[in-house]
Amino acid sequence: MSAQKIQIFDTTLRDGEQVPGCKLNMDEKLVIARQLELLGVDVIEAGFPVSSPGDFEAVKAIAAQTKEATVCGLSRAVEQDIRIAAEALATARNPRIHTGIGTSESHIKFKLRTTQEKVMERAIEAVRLAKSFVEDVEFYAEDAGRTENEFLAKICEAAVKAGATVLNIPDTTGYCLPEEYGAKIKYLYENVKGIDRVRLSTHCHNDLGLATANSIAGVVNGARQIECTINGVGERAGNTALEEVVMILRQHPYLKLDTNVNSKLLAETSAMVSHMMRMPVQPNKAIVGSNAFSHSSGIHQDGVIKHRETYEIIDPRDVGVPDSSIVLTARSGRAALAYRLQKIGYNFDKGTLDKAYASFLQIADSKKEVVDNDLHTLVEEKNLVTAS
Amino acid sequence: MSAQKIQIFDTTLRDGEQVPGCKLNMDEKLVIARQLELLGVDVIEAGFPVSSPGDFEAVKAIAAQTKEATVCGLSRAVEQDIRIAAEALATARNPRIHTGIGTSESHIKFKLRTTQEKVMERAIEAVRLAKSFVEDVEFYAEDAGRTENEFLAKICEAAVKAGATVLNIPDTTGYCLPEEYGAKIKYLYENVKGIDRVRLSTHCHNDLGLATANSIAGVVNGARQIECTINGVGERAGNTALEEVVMILRQHPYLKLDTNVNSKLLAETSAMVSHMMRMPVQPNKAIVGSNAFSHSSGIHQDGVIKHRETYEIIDPRDVGVPDSSIVLTARSGRAALAYRLQKIGYNFDKGTLDKAYASFLQIADSKKEVVDNDLHTLVEEKNLVTAS
Repeated sequence: MSAQKIQIFDTTLRDGEQVPGCKLNMDEKLVIARQLELLGVDVIEAGFPVSSPGDFEAVKAIAAQTKEATVCGLSRAVEQDIRIAAEALATARNPRIHTGIGTSESHIKFKLRTTQEKVMERAIEAVRLAKSFVEDVEFYAEDAGRTENEFLAKICEAAVKAGATVLNIPDTTGYCLPEEYGAKIKYLYENVKGIDRVRLSTHCHNDLGLATANSIAGVVNGARQIECTINGVGERAGNTALEEVVMILRQHPYLKLDTNVNSKLLAETSAMVSHMMRMPVQPNKAIVGSNAFSHSSGIHQDGVIKHRETYEIIDPRDVGVPDSSIVLTARSGRAALAYRLQKIGYNFDKGTLDKAYASFLQIADSKKEVVDNDLHTLVEEKNLVTAS
Repeated sequence: MSAQKIQIFDTTLRDGEQVPGCKLNMDEKLVIARQLELLGVDVIEAGFPVSSPGDFEAVKAIAAQTKEATVCGLSRAVEQDIRIAAEALATARNPRIHTGIGTSESHIKFKLRTTQEKVMERAIEAVRLAKSFVEDVEFYAEDAGRTENEFLAKICEAAVKAGATVLNIPDTTGYCLPEEYGAKIKYLYENVKGIDRVRLSTHCHNDLGLATANSIAGVVNGARQIECTINGVGERAGNTALEEVVMILRQHPYLKLDTNVNSKLLAETSAMVSHMMRMPVQPNKAIVGSNAFSHSSGIHQDGVIKHRETYEIIDPRDVGVPDSSIVLTARSGRAALAYRLQKIGYNFDKGTLDKAYASFLQIADSKKEVVDNDLHTLVEEKNLVTAS
């Protein structure tokens, strides 16, 4: 059996862009949208058209520019929101309206101040209205992560009946554990009538550091779309990181799930989004952090030099990073030092290497990183002689 | 049944400090070690004594300073490593030697260039030697994540027989999915003779963004120690983030697992480590990122103002952050604007608020964030009048 396709729904320009400090101008949004299409995402959530005139114009321009990918606009289950989303998407080749409402007790009672029945009615009306504009309608059950499964299945079933093509099950507050979230998706997959005609979608937040694991638990249990962002940007602790879920599926082929993403463009896409949003990616970020393929301890460096796979599961070139780097620090061993010395032209016998290593450790204990120039100086000062 | 205690083994000063650019001087190491003890970690891995004279001295000083916590030093299964670790730990009240060897096919074949039998012998010798110096010996099976379970159980059993008190099962390359890693721990828990007398430990790397989920899967399946670092620093994409696993267990009391960590010190500990290591924490980092408790979209702001729990599962004060913040941007709705205006002294009726909101959106579309001064200017320029 070949791998089943998981759609990648990128919401960098909506869930990501709404974050403090991440605002993009129109040109930047168009450049990122083009890059996302190049990267191979299936759906671009371009914005929340009713939220501001600037956002409306951006969704409109992205809709006009995009060739293959579906372009999606967010709306609440509010008539005005949906009409304006439809207007913004008018020129899209593959438009999708994303509409929905809070379904958890907390959202119904404290935010919406209404009842389950009223929420159900509003959901149905919203999906029907959206469907009068576009064929492709995604329904979200906000705070589904904390919604009891029975009501969630009921409202999902009603949304399908009203014409929804995708059901989005957000863990809005990032509360779920992978097992719980997976079980929720499984429950819906098994209990919602008509589920075989539509696509279940994950939308996980990272408040407890579990967004990626939850998304994977979702697709393993029947979801066929992952909502995510480049670098995991998004509200609060952010959204699921696109680069992580894509590489997990690729690294575990036995799951028989894959995406259309061209992983070789991940590093450059990450850098572009980080730069334009002025949103730093920490060095120890999975896949796209600057240290993700750096090896510094002596034990690890020795292993990588002998055989890359001992400490690296991903070939850096597969995600667009030229090569893994061996950084010399106080924790580097003889093997790494010899390797680096060789790269810059010195080939020492064991005795000379031992001398070099002792001097190297002195430098390394006082400096964070030892660079090639330090090594040249060391060789010169100590009068070390290359083996012929 | 009350919660079972999970020990927190912090390796910020070993796995974290060996990272390119993260080098600390002696004073910084002592300050961080003191903070870790204050935070309530059970074990401080202070360094890898044989790796450099500077590291030896640091482990020695931390051992002398630490009052309650266990102080641990790393070693390979090499006589010299173990003797030097023991020497560095000589004055510790609760010393632990951490020793071990690669057990996966990849490590045995390509890195160690030896056989399973020889690896087993070296493991036993190493544990015995360590045990001759200290009572508390932790054995690590490097690359356990990719080691077949049967051999792993065999070598673990031998280590227990030789005197190991803790068995560390590292997913060295960050390859495992939570289900796999959990199943591995379960297998060991059920198949290693003498396991009831010792403690299984997780040590997960974040190459695919799954370190936190894997650690939790580990303790759910029988591990009773988590190895982790502040801010998830560590080799490549880093280690399990201490702040994430601690808060997951606290937020899911039904798991009946808890730690001794005083969560109110998490924010300040994170800031201290980030500052001293010159290792930035990205704004969208779970628990300790600067945006972790910021709400920017209108929908979310409205919810949080009405009832905090609609979008927040953790009270920011529980991790030492004074308050969640409402940031005004182009995505903010009327509710957030009214809330902020009220905070700075303006109480408008609906009509006036509508006027203010239209002007606010114009400003917000051209600025990343709207601050209080912008609002004062807006009110003045538009001659808006407060409702009595």
